[in-house]
Amino acid sequence: MTTPPLDAHPALAAAASAALEAYTVATAEHDRATLAAVVADGADGTPTMRIDVLVEQAILAALSRHPVNVLSEETGWVDRGSALTLVMDPVDGSANAAAGVPLAAFSAAVAEDGVFTEALTVWLDTGRSWWARAGEPSPLRTSGRTGLAGAAVSLLRPHPANPGAAAAWWEVARTAARIRILSTSCLEGALVAQGSTDAFADAATDTHRLVDLAASVVLAEAGGGAVRDVFGRPIGLDTDLTKRWSGVVAATPDLADELVTVLHDAYVAQRTG
Amino acid sequence: MTTPPLDAHPALAAAASAALEAYTVATAEHDRATLAAVVADGADGTPTMRIDVLVEQAILAALSRHPVNVLSEETGWVDRGSALTLVMDPVDGSANAAAGVPLAAFSAAVAEDGVFTEALTVWLDTGRSWWARAGEPSPLRTSGRTGLAGAAVSLLRPHPANPGAAAAWWEVARTAARIRILSTSCLEGALVAQGSTDAFADAATDTHRLVDLAASVVLAEAGGGAVRDVFGRPIGLDTDLTKRWSGVVAATPDLADELVTVLHDAYVAQRTG
Repeated sequence: MTTPPLDAHPALAAAASAALEAYTVATAEHDRATLAAVVADGADGTPTMRIDVLVEQAILAALSRHPVNVLSEETGWVDRGSALTLVMDPVDGSANAAAGVPLAAFSAAVAEDGVFTEALTVWLDTGRSWWARAGEPSPLRTSGRTGLAGAAVSLLRPHPANPGAAAAWWEVARTAARIRILSTSCLEGALVAQGSTDAFADAATDTHRLVDLAASVVLAEAGGGAVRDVFGRPIGLDTDLTKRWSGVVAATPDLADELVTVLHDAYVAQRTG
Repeated sequence: MTTPPLDAHPALAAAASAALEAYTVATAEHDRATLAAVVADGADGTPTMRIDVLVEQAILAALSRHPVNVLSEETGWVDRGSALTLVMDPVDGSANAAAGVPLAAFSAAVAEDGVFTEALTVWLDTGRSWWARAGEPSPLRTSGRTGLAGAAVSLLRPHPANPGAAAAWWEVARTAARIRILSTSCLEGALVAQGSTDAFADAATDTHRLVDLAASVVLAEAGGGAVRDVFGRPIGLDTDLTKRWSGVVAATPDLADELVTVLHDAYVAQRTG
């Protein structure tokens, strides 16, 4: 797959191209300490690194010719009176990007009147991309796996200081055949959508923001998969970027449901037991 | 960095080029089930996938013009009466490769009269490479980090059914600032050598074979780092591929020593407590 796909929405394509160019220039011109320097607090409530700002600014400049609303990790909500909103993480996997671990992604979804209709994730280190439009045929195909036993699962890192979440993480590690932590939610979601891994989950730590999940909703569903929240909250357009989810992106609705049950039950048992 | 480096040993360069070409052809021509099919038991005692065989056979054919000994994951020890031995993993991260997770590497070290003198790791999905010769200046530079608190550490996946190893894994997760599981030991070792992550460890599961560690010894040391075994066993040329280590590749000797102590003590405390 190449970047950007020919039939992507022009605003989505323009944002992706700008991100890829800005990322390539930034990582060539700056050393790691410069890229990792915290320069602000983002609209999502987490620290903003310089690499995030450089890429987001390039995207916003490119979007000046495309009158869509933007919901982005650092800047937050930019209302331009459009029925379309780009929900976007300029650099997913910022810590990877700043350190030189070549696993970072641009990722965005188009929301039309609040519903996610199209998404594009671009692996910024190689230019490889994943695109889909809801309701249209797609080459994406998940693995089709329906059960956790034997599954390959990507997880966010464990948090031993949070007993409920630690128990949930460990329960998945006990049952799954493979565990990976790539530290880039959107790329891990794309790997589920293309069938290379069976699921990706935030093990009940409520770390996921909407920008970590929006593209995966479209991509995974296009491939036959499903996206859930461990605590049952709906995942839809919300302009408050401080909201959090514990997202589960899975190859099938059955696997998504099993992961939610396993994570939720282990979390609750530890908290109440 | 490009592949292969101009000043690499001709046998090492020939092996890497053959691996890259064979991997590219194999992943383009075969589907995932075909690549992942177990076709033999390797000399290292683990199952051999078709992707492993396809790449190893291409390498061995390329090495027919280079009269060095070979110690390789699947075929084992090929004695051609040379003072030089290529210690080689044709496809490190076979499970990633077969599934389409783009994190797999060719990795090999040259042993001269039993001592590792040169190494080359090639990321097969992009062609990017890391090369060094012992005792010569190198552009590789580790992060220089000396302590585990605040470190970014790559680990093999945890094994909850092994209480000692599980305790050791969890203790590192409790202390480190970042945890990754990329499922490709040689690439994770290269990322330590170039300073993108601070350490990589097998948390006392004795999963590492010599082919998982040989190249990292040369690359990490060229960048100022150090390689250890959690249980103090020396890591050197040994033609018995069923031997195992719990390797620690770290940015500095101090960090390597601390990781060995933390892992070893947590393992022993769980086993005896």
